[in-house]
Amino acid sequence: MEKEAMRIRFDFSNVMSDNLGDLFGLRETVLKNYREQVTVIHHDFLRRAERGEFAFMNLPRQKEVLDEILDYTEKIAGRFESYVHLGIGGSALGPIALHAALRHPYYNELSPEQRGQAPKMYFLDNIDPDTIAAILAVVDVKKTLFSVVTKSGGTAETISEYLFFLNKLREKLGENYRENLLFITDPLRGFLHKLALEENIRTFTIDPAVGGRFSVLTPVGLFPAALSGIDVNQLLDGAAYMTKICQYEELLKNPAYLFGLINYLYYLEGRRTIVMMPYSDRLFRIADWFRQLWAESLGKQNNRANRIINAGPLPVKALGVTDQHSQVQLYMDGPNDKLFAFLEVEKFARTVSLQSPYPKAPEANYLNNKTMNELIAAEKLATEIAFTENQRPNLTFKVPEVNPFTVGQFFQIFAVAAAFTGELFDINVFNQPGVEAGKVAAYALMGRAGYEEKAAEIARKLAAKKAHVV
Amino acid sequence: MEKEAMRIRFDFSNVMSDNLGDLFGLRETVLKNYREQVTVIHHDFLRRAERGEFAFMNLPRQKEVLDEILDYTEKIAGRFESYVHLGIGGSALGPIALHAALRHPYYNELSPEQRGQAPKMYFLDNIDPDTIAAILAVVDVKKTLFSVVTKSGGTAETISEYLFFLNKLREKLGENYRENLLFITDPLRGFLHKLALEENIRTFTIDPAVGGRFSVLTPVGLFPAALSGIDVNQLLDGAAYMTKICQYEELLKNPAYLFGLINYLYYLEGRRTIVMMPYSDRLFRIADWFRQLWAESLGKQNNRANRIINAGPLPVKALGVTDQHSQVQLYMDGPNDKLFAFLEVEKFARTVSLQSPYPKAPEANYLNNKTMNELIAAEKLATEIAFTENQRPNLTFKVPEVNPFTVGQFFQIFAVAAAFTGELFDINVFNQPGVEAGKVAAYALMGRAGYEEKAAEIARKLAAKKAHVV
Repeated sequence: MEKEAMRIRFDFSNVMSDNLGDLFGLRETVLKNYREQVTVIHHDFLRRAERGEFAFMNLPRQKEVLDEILDYTEKIAGRFESYVHLGIGGSALGPIALHAALRHPYYNELSPEQRGQAPKMYFLDNIDPDTIAAILAVVDVKKTLFSVVTKSGGTAETISEYLFFLNKLREKLGENYRENLLFITDPLRGFLHKLALEENIRTFTIDPAVGGRFSVLTPVGLFPAALSGIDVNQLLDGAAYMTKICQYEELLKNPAYLFGLINYLYYLEGRRTIVMMPYSDRLFRIADWFRQLWAESLGKQNNRANRIINAGPLPVKALGVTDQHSQVQLYMDGPNDKLFAFLEVEKFARTVSLQSPYPKAPEANYLNNKTMNELIAAEKLATEIAFTENQRPNLTFKVPEVNPFTVGQFFQIFAVAAAFTGELFDINVFNQPGVEAGKVAAYALMGRAGYEEKAAEIARKLAAKKAHVV
Repeated sequence: MEKEAMRIRFDFSNVMSDNLGDLFGLRETVLKNYREQVTVIHHDFLRRAERGEFAFMNLPRQKEVLDEILDYTEKIAGRFESYVHLGIGGSALGPIALHAALRHPYYNELSPEQRGQAPKMYFLDNIDPDTIAAILAVVDVKKTLFSVVTKSGGTAETISEYLFFLNKLREKLGENYRENLLFITDPLRGFLHKLALEENIRTFTIDPAVGGRFSVLTPVGLFPAALSGIDVNQLLDGAAYMTKICQYEELLKNPAYLFGLINYLYYLEGRRTIVMMPYSDRLFRIADWFRQLWAESLGKQNNRANRIINAGPLPVKALGVTDQHSQVQLYMDGPNDKLFAFLEVEKFARTVSLQSPYPKAPEANYLNNKTMNELIAAEKLATEIAFTENQRPNLTFKVPEVNPFTVGQFFQIFAVAAAFTGELFDINVFNQPGVEAGKVAAYALMGRAGYEEKAAEIARKLAAKKAHVV
């Protein structure tokens, strides 16, 4: 069956005691001990899903959103040379992951013909003034679509970018600036939503029940993907396919539950770092997307009973084979306090053949008549073997190919896994109270109305601070 | 004085107990207790430097290497449309850090005029077949200089890339392929060195006493930097300037020693993660370079007495402000087991002004007549304040500007710090024995002559492996 052949497989052999050994390996009985708790969580999920929580699990079926997007991308086809995506965090990491995984590695350097007349794509997810200013050297504002993406509608970074480019658009286009603007935001509330109504700006909406880091399959990710020619139908199909698999009640059949449980068990033993290491340039930014999902969903001060637990595994991204020459020394010889999750591509899109004209050189000859595909596969397997022999627990997600159908699967495996792992920690997965203090301080420092007291408090503290500088 | 104004300052206020509090803060007396040990290490360094160790500290003074490079870049000026750098680990991270810090953020998309006629720059530090194949869509092989960079001269990834592009060059250029090749390797030994002699290929050499991860100021980093128009004289001047400062015997005047000691003290307390978080897109890849330096230098199984210690802090990179919307939730609310090192730019090259046409909107109005420069500075300070109040120890390197003189300083601060911290751990900073097992397994899997026994052993083990896959 076609879909089955494109299914991502989760290989957890190298965390099990029969391969990793008894000291750090997990026994199957330990996993099975959790079956009852898994069942309880599972049925709780089903109930809460009926009440409208876990809305991210329904996204793959919202094809009407897709139709609206595809209508619009068709309507504007050929009109823009460039697309600039203004967003940060959950408004950027999903679209960037999609673009990196499914478009050409040097996409913006291709000719319009090579890009199928789709615009060049820029994702601005920082407020570095040098970068913001620099983009004006490579885009013609008049021929650029600026997409302002913020669920709340008021994110400081995104609004500041919007203000900057709005002025540029008005300078160049006068009152026609609206034609080059798109908002992606909440359908009911927020500054951007209000503005869209007042100024009549084209808007796609984000399902209010879907949190930022779970929003890649809303217009946040779907619109830029569709605009650049990614098959978003396939993307949603893959996501829908994997969502079903991640709804299996049986722990040993559910990759999301298994991944979550394994992470949790190792965390309890003091293994607080999870290194996600794709052996694929294209999948590297999925590790980045995962990094937000995992850190914000699981990094929590309090559990649901309001006890201070300061929990949360540290998600780290690494790149195979590149980081074999940077991080693997530490991973092998340093503290044995990390769990590894490889992403492995079984079939790359291209085959790169190697010939060596140096039959006498052992450094080159073993590569003769081999492929780079064989080399990257060998290096991944070699690293896996070395880790396992050295009792470093490691997991592998095997991806038949990198395509929209498989990339869609990734998002849902990890999103379900995050929700599930949060239940094991007994925390609220969907909030992020820890960033509030920094936001408030930033508003105070910027002189925002209503934050005067905080500003005075900060000024007092800074004055009292003892400087130690060299 | 000009140089003094461009000096990177190390602010360690927020790890000291008078600001961070007594529970996790360091007292100045604790630092001072290490003065004697610091003096011992310092004088040992001086002795070893005289014997030719720590060669990386002499690099900034090797201006004759620079002259050779500048002669060559002048000679080939205008001849190549593109430059492709083939290297991995220490052969890539330095040059990439330099390029990202000191060239335009969208460099390859600029016109040749905007690039000052310098070639487009590509750094291939992975063997993903899709990326390798894809580069042929954007470079014209005939007009491309391929630089093969490997200190040992035999790195599998780099040699495989070389073989692939060598064939492409020969197809297009016949025996003239040499004109488009450059080697950067050891001056005395290795496959590439031998080949350079036999085939008469232009070569720059790497000081044999300088290890890969310390080699950014050899031709490994200097050549591509010079080629793309970076002021490499200023780079070396900055490095030389900071090298002197990092040779101060007095702990409290030496930023490298202080940074190393602070890292070490927190590591001893179980704080095993150091997050380097530049608030600057340009400096992000310096954090990547640091990641290799720190992980490979300090991640060691054995100490010098050959006792198993499995030591090594985990270096993590994060990006301000971007990761405020991804990682800061965890950094604030998760386990208090991390040390943070911010890189802060005091003056960006460009000023981005903001105006808001929405006087009634509080979400935009506080940004009116402000600059994005103020916003990024406020967000950095806000994060620092929030961390400190929450007892999360944090350091800041303050960079007056991002320019060759300051970037050169970074490399030397951290290189000296790595060497110094290794002494505190009593380990060998300059080797990487932990990657050997993986290399051997990869050779075996690729069928390299001499590895037959290992291949048979691996085959036996794989056959005995119990599969757990879902």
